[in-house]
Amino acid sequence: MVLLFLRFNYYIEKVQILYQKSMAKELNSREDNYSQWYTDIVTKADLAENSAVRGCMVIKPHGYAIWERMQGALDKMFKDTGHENAYFPLFIPKSFFSKEASHVEGFAKECAVVTHYRLKNDENGKGVVVDETAKLEEELIVRPTSETIIWDTYRTWIQSYRDLPLLINQWANVVRWEMRTRLFLRTTEFLWQEGHTAHATKDEAVAEAEQMLRVYAEFAEDWMAMPVLKGVKSANERFAGAVETYCIEALMQDGKALQAGTSHFLGQNFAKAFDVQFLSKENKLEYVWATSWGVSTRLMGALIMTHSDNSGLVCPPKLAPIQVVIVPIYRNDEQFKAISEKSREIKKQLEAVGVRVKFDDRDTQKPGYKFSEWELKGVPLRLAIGPRDLENGTVEIARRDTLEKEMLQMQNIDQKVVHLLEKIQKNLYQKALDFRTANTFKVDSWNEFLEQIEKGGFILAHWDGTPETEQQIKEETKATIRLIPLEGEKENGKCVYSGKPSSGRVVFARAY
Amino acid sequence: MVLLFLRFNYYIEKVQILYQKSMAKELNSREDNYSQWYTDIVTKADLAENSAVRGCMVIKPHGYAIWERMQGALDKMFKDTGHENAYFPLFIPKSFFSKEASHVEGFAKECAVVTHYRLKNDENGKGVVVDETAKLEEELIVRPTSETIIWDTYRTWIQSYRDLPLLINQWANVVRWEMRTRLFLRTTEFLWQEGHTAHATKDEAVAEAEQMLRVYAEFAEDWMAMPVLKGVKSANERFAGAVETYCIEALMQDGKALQAGTSHFLGQNFAKAFDVQFLSKENKLEYVWATSWGVSTRLMGALIMTHSDNSGLVCPPKLAPIQVVIVPIYRNDEQFKAISEKSREIKKQLEAVGVRVKFDDRDTQKPGYKFSEWELKGVPLRLAIGPRDLENGTVEIARRDTLEKEMLQMQNIDQKVVHLLEKIQKNLYQKALDFRTANTFKVDSWNEFLEQIEKGGFILAHWDGTPETEQQIKEETKATIRLIPLEGEKENGKCVYSGKPSSGRVVFARAY
Repeated sequence: MVLLFLRFNYYIEKVQILYQKSMAKELNSREDNYSQWYTDIVTKADLAENSAVRGCMVIKPHGYAIWERMQGALDKMFKDTGHENAYFPLFIPKSFFSKEASHVEGFAKECAVVTHYRLKNDENGKGVVVDETAKLEEELIVRPTSETIIWDTYRTWIQSYRDLPLLINQWANVVRWEMRTRLFLRTTEFLWQEGHTAHATKDEAVAEAEQMLRVYAEFAEDWMAMPVLKGVKSANERFAGAVETYCIEALMQDGKALQAGTSHFLGQNFAKAFDVQFLSKENKLEYVWATSWGVSTRLMGALIMTHSDNSGLVCPPKLAPIQVVIVPIYRNDEQFKAISEKSREIKKQLEAVGVRVKFDDRDTQKPGYKFSEWELKGVPLRLAIGPRDLENGTVEIARRDTLEKEMLQMQNIDQKVVHLLEKIQKNLYQKALDFRTANTFKVDSWNEFLEQIEKGGFILAHWDGTPETEQQIKEETKATIRLIPLEGEKENGKCVYSGKPSSGRVVFARAY
Repeated sequence: MVLLFLRFNYYIEKVQILYQKSMAKELNSREDNYSQWYTDIVTKADLAENSAVRGCMVIKPHGYAIWERMQGALDKMFKDTGHENAYFPLFIPKSFFSKEASHVEGFAKECAVVTHYRLKNDENGKGVVVDETAKLEEELIVRPTSETIIWDTYRTWIQSYRDLPLLINQWANVVRWEMRTRLFLRTTEFLWQEGHTAHATKDEAVAEAEQMLRVYAEFAEDWMAMPVLKGVKSANERFAGAVETYCIEALMQDGKALQAGTSHFLGQNFAKAFDVQFLSKENKLEYVWATSWGVSTRLMGALIMTHSDNSGLVCPPKLAPIQVVIVPIYRNDEQFKAISEKSREIKKQLEAVGVRVKFDDRDTQKPGYKFSEWELKGVPLRLAIGPRDLENGTVEIARRDTLEKEMLQMQNIDQKVVHLLEKIQKNLYQKALDFRTANTFKVDSWNEFLEQIEKGGFILAHWDGTPETEQQIKEETKATIRLIPLEGEKENGKCVYSGKPSSGRVVFARAY
């Protein structure tokens, strides 16, 4: 009886969930609650969701398909610049973290620690418990980043200048035990790539770090349609163990900055810590020069927050898993049949020129529902075809970026679609660039700074170059120096906080 | 003084290593020591090596490049059969393993257990220690396979028959704490893909499991040039939690079998354990039917052991990162210049028809050294070009599979190379198939069985169908039932061990 009742409750629950599903998926608006709007898009557009494991996310198929496209583009750029992929262990012996002093000092200690290697059946028959006799002699850390294990490996790979440069990248999962997590932006486990290169000279290593920064910037702008500033971090914000940290920073729609990628010149720090020397052409033993660089699934968060609107995700065509969705509009089977035939024909035509197309022929949902769903998921172009279109040889085309609709002749539809996709890609970039321009402010007084930082945006201000001033500004305003620009002219001035001399403006913002 | 002495020692050590490197990389022969021959190829052909972490390997760039090609081919096959990729957490709460009874019973308990989430600086200044105050309430297990966490997730994804089938694959790293490890074949951490699908009916789930077995077999034969037998496992050898385990088995050159992929029909076991029900078209609540299927970096071991010889790796052209290497033969700069020009021209010509080419223009190594190195690394075709070739418009071409050399006219070299690569791919498959045929034996008496099992190979013998007999045979001979064939005619007979009736032969072998 109880069981029956439970089953009935379960049934009711399923029906309720189904009812909710059948309604339009309402998003919180960007203006009312930016943070909830972001989470709504991530979860309702089926990009990712929280898992049963605290802080770890499940990347859902639609989100993963976008990430795969990011990976594909980046991987090609890495290979085109001479890098090869490899794979290093997930686990790092605890003692490795003590070897590079500034690395261990600066690096967050929030890591997952493996202490045992066996489970056993509970003696009371209550499932499994940890077998206390299977304790590791030395604990293993789930990699938060792989400099240490990789440089330990490079010691045997590098003997002579002939082995250099060593240009390696790894696609991997890493774990940092974050206390406050947000889907894509900050999760305990995340996916990333980490490049680790070894060079014979300092100049070559610096050039590599700078090259990879340019690669990241090019990817952000050309593929993600996301304009970025390029620069170096102040000493406070540098990666633990780095001599110089290069970075790209983007501006989100709420006026907060997001660090989208970093490239580090590591000097000889890791080579010295892991004793990696090589015989130079002059037959001298020298320490190797190093770089490391990485971007992560955080880019998914950046993508969402750069372009999306109150209808959901807006995905740049180059990264969209589906670039065009075709929705048939019909009243009866006969119409459906005729429209389907035409739709499949158009699909083929578009695929022949390399466009990724979905024909949504589900008979379980109405066109209006489909329109909302594909808008929510960010598909750049929607074609709707009804009986009248068949007669007239037309198709209704809707742009996701502008939400504008237009009637087009079906003739040369492939060329028209290709052209529109290019136009959307460019428009998204231009829109984001205009937004950034409108939200970048030169500020010369502390009062102005205090006022502007509340409104958001990038603040270009003079800084006296001291960590103390930087720290004071951070404490008083929560703004950090996002970067010291690499481009643009240098201009002398006075520090916005201390009034001391400054040799150039830096970029302040509150950041993710 | 001591420091100077240490540095001097270090210098001597580097010079010694360099000297060893400059010598030909000798392999143990296949006939003398098969196991060491295998390890030699893996390490000396730069495929993988052991890491500082017990049982975990480093996959080196050359090995990883082959794995990437395997991934690419499989991923396309999965997508062509309607599957999408997604990503689930690395960690699984310990309690999840207790939910599916036969899964927890049968599954090896050798797992990496995360118990803490923070390190701290040692009070005595000796690096970092585990922060004992940061202990997890429930331990997390590093995934050995992901059925449990995925089915826990599917509960919210699946409400109605409209949500089915759910066809998902994941590329991931997994960890099983193996006591005895061997590079690629059995490592604590390995890379794999795991498909996890959900269906409305039993028939559909069975059809999916069978389809994926065919996909694996096709991949093994078409891409790896490795013939496989298809079948199902006996109850003893089934995956923990599966109703039926389908598998492909290959025969290695030492006469041992290697399980190359499995596909499981899981019935409703996981749906019941994780309470995943759906509303059917008839508006009834029903449990979902499941499959899972996977292949791993173990395939790299299978590839190596199927084709390689005493000169090193033999890689099928379809999976070879470099298909053709061009080696210039020259005595002076002038010759080098002229040959380089011609080589680059040929490289371009070959790349235009989709061939992957390396022009080895290193001036630090002699041609003989280069020949050995590329043979060791398994490059299918080598072109050597000397001054006389330039005059005569010829090129010397060497096949890796047969080690035969031939002089070719440079004219239409692209078509000749494409043709040869196809020929090599076919030849490798045929050679492996001939080997398997020659090493497959119908055995009808126990004495014959005992004799043959010592010599290796697949043994086709009758079995009475009982786990007891299977267990006895395993204890007496170390042979296991590799599979019950899906193909071929059924033949009645008597069990080779017990003499009891049998309805068909099964395949016995010693296995990796």
